[in-house]
Amino acid sequence: MTIREDAKTIIQAAITSALPDTAVRKALDSLEVKEGKLVLVAIGKAAWQMAKAAEDYLGDRISEGICITKYQHVLGEIPHIQCFEAGHPVLDENSIKATKEAEKLVSNLKEEDTVLFLVSGGGSALFENPLIPLEELQDITQQLLDCGASITEINTLRKRLSSVKGGKFAKTCEPAHVFSIILSDIIGDPLDMIASGPAYPDSSSAKDALDIVHKYHLKLSDTALHLLSEETPKECPNVETHITGSVKQLCAAAMSKGKELGYEPIFLTSSLDCLAKEAGNFLAAIARDYSNSDHSMAFILGGETVVHRKGNGKGGRCQEIALSAAQGIQGLKDVCLFALGSDGTDGPTDAAGGIVDGNTYSILKEKGISILDYLTRNDSYHALKQCDGLIITGPTGTNVNDVIVLLIKR
Amino acid sequence: MTIREDAKTIIQAAITSALPDTAVRKALDSLEVKEGKLVLVAIGKAAWQMAKAAEDYLGDRISEGICITKYQHVLGEIPHIQCFEAGHPVLDENSIKATKEAEKLVSNLKEEDTVLFLVSGGGSALFENPLIPLEELQDITQQLLDCGASITEINTLRKRLSSVKGGKFAKTCEPAHVFSIILSDIIGDPLDMIASGPAYPDSSSAKDALDIVHKYHLKLSDTALHLLSEETPKECPNVETHITGSVKQLCAAAMSKGKELGYEPIFLTSSLDCLAKEAGNFLAAIARDYSNSDHSMAFILGGETVVHRKGNGKGGRCQEIALSAAQGIQGLKDVCLFALGSDGTDGPTDAAGGIVDGNTYSILKEKGISILDYLTRNDSYHALKQCDGLIITGPTGTNVNDVIVLLIKR
Repeated sequence: MTIREDAKTIIQAAITSALPDTAVRKALDSLEVKEGKLVLVAIGKAAWQMAKAAEDYLGDRISEGICITKYQHVLGEIPHIQCFEAGHPVLDENSIKATKEAEKLVSNLKEEDTVLFLVSGGGSALFENPLIPLEELQDITQQLLDCGASITEINTLRKRLSSVKGGKFAKTCEPAHVFSIILSDIIGDPLDMIASGPAYPDSSSAKDALDIVHKYHLKLSDTALHLLSEETPKECPNVETHITGSVKQLCAAAMSKGKELGYEPIFLTSSLDCLAKEAGNFLAAIARDYSNSDHSMAFILGGETVVHRKGNGKGGRCQEIALSAAQGIQGLKDVCLFALGSDGTDGPTDAAGGIVDGNTYSILKEKGISILDYLTRNDSYHALKQCDGLIITGPTGTNVNDVIVLLIKR
Repeated sequence: MTIREDAKTIIQAAITSALPDTAVRKALDSLEVKEGKLVLVAIGKAAWQMAKAAEDYLGDRISEGICITKYQHVLGEIPHIQCFEAGHPVLDENSIKATKEAEKLVSNLKEEDTVLFLVSGGGSALFENPLIPLEELQDITQQLLDCGASITEINTLRKRLSSVKGGKFAKTCEPAHVFSIILSDIIGDPLDMIASGPAYPDSSSAKDALDIVHKYHLKLSDTALHLLSEETPKECPNVETHITGSVKQLCAAAMSKGKELGYEPIFLTSSLDCLAKEAGNFLAAIARDYSNSDHSMAFILGGETVVHRKGNGKGGRCQEIALSAAQGIQGLKDVCLFALGSDGTDGPTDAAGGIVDGNTYSILKEKGISILDYLTRNDSYHALKQCDGLIITGPTGTNVNDVIVLLIKR
């Protein structure tokens, strides 16, 4: 196989690993089914795909279930599962209605019962049942936004004003066991942030909440003030959490496939957040030193780099990483670098990312294309298009950040 | 030892390894002294230190020698060695006079004789005996500069117009053995570029030279044209080359000392050339993923990063790497990063570089210092000064680029 064929195999493996159905199926392998009822609750933008995958896998074992996703995201009927569509990114009455149904479903369960709780991004808005009127909640949120409160501060308050956030949904499920599968799209996997952690202990205290009220001179009703002074669950002993489909899994899949193809995999980071162009420079510097390595190597990174748009070209952060690296690896034999977004969409383009090798520079030069000029114009798409450098996958149905791989083949 | 104490030990080891005397002494360990004469020729900005180190080591074993360095760089008499000072970066008549003396010294040697040839940066100007009048050489160089010729193109011509460059000095030494020690300050160690390669085969051809004349419509004398059509040495079988004190050695010394202190060393690159600030971001991303590693690790890099000055603050590229990393590693325990220039001078400051750890961010925050603000003003020096973050070594007497180390301690 050529190094580019190796790259394509690794790309395919990485994307497949991050798809909701693959991710859910993998996590379900460790589900120990008890003798009681198995109830499913799926929330978030990928809730339908996750519920579908679970139903395909478990079939009649599921007694009943609820799936809450955003409008136009229910793609068909799923046996045993009632599907709801609701507001995202701003919650609406349908979010609350569906969430109440879910709470009803998991109330009065027994110790031998299991709640299969499938969580994906967007759950904060889609899964909410406020303990105060919706208008009051919206007013408090607006007050916090107006005075520049941080997202952590906002969440500290909102968890206390909700009947499901901050571990409270897990409490409602008690004494049933909660088997929670989280499809993570937040770098670093902060479990109390994803969907505001309905089945994860809250790390903030009531004192923190009241300090925030004081700090920003918030105007609150007595009910709200009373709720803020109540403590959230500090442990959720009935919950078992499996994180899946995160950027780490994307990296792990790339590493595993790379190893299978004979490369020594070296994982560098899952939280790359520097300028895309400079990430390309940095990786090219690694390539130059390892291009004489006596064995095949694969450097693997995940994250979400940044583009400072100065030109009016077409491209995305992954394409900029690749094009920038092409300059620095020019002339190197059997070196290949690719970067792609797991959702299949890099910037406002039809490409998922870019792939380059030691010949890319000279191929472009022969066509009169200067990499540095194209980078300055943020026009990576058009440069990569001229040298077989675009990765096209189409939308993949998942979104767990980007994966970047540098291959050196012997 | 604390992680900062480990860092200081590694810094000391790296700098010591790159000092001309350490470097020369190490290389001389593999010198097999023959029964004939041992003649020394030292050229470049570090020629005096290198000659001194060799004389200290070999003493009376040296029959005679010549040292050619830039003005004010001869720091005292060295037994057996005649010291010359000459023009740098622009060669002058003293360069030519001293070079002629060196050529005389190595002419008529026998097969059992050895030339100890010590090469450091700046040798291109300091070691030159043109085969055409100096004025004509200057005119040709100017023509090339005016028409935008590359440094490779300029060297291709100049090697043919010189009696020492492009391997020709090694020819003059024949049949004596040449033991060449090169103190490298050029990233990637291109041996035909350092001091224009007096003892290294030239990779360009006479055809290349004439193509350049044609390409730029150069106006040349018949003598010059004839010289350009003559072939340079394509091999130097009498030469044995030892590269020392390069950025690779700086990295190797840091790796070796890190290993001794219990860290698993991971070498990334010796040719880092991206934006300093972004290198800091990139390394912080690695730190975040490895801060939970079950054993101590050291990531090691060398190179010369770039600063885009936008503010009017005080700092240098190494200090920017460190300060930028401090933002990204905030709160991490037992993580430390340092970056320093081997010459002991980072930018126009009295610091060699910067050192930060997981506490740096909060120490600065308490003092009201925002890292991002200071980075925007390119004022890394003043921020690092407030948090014990400056590395002060004083001038070290060598210059082989920067070394950057990320430590994670268990």
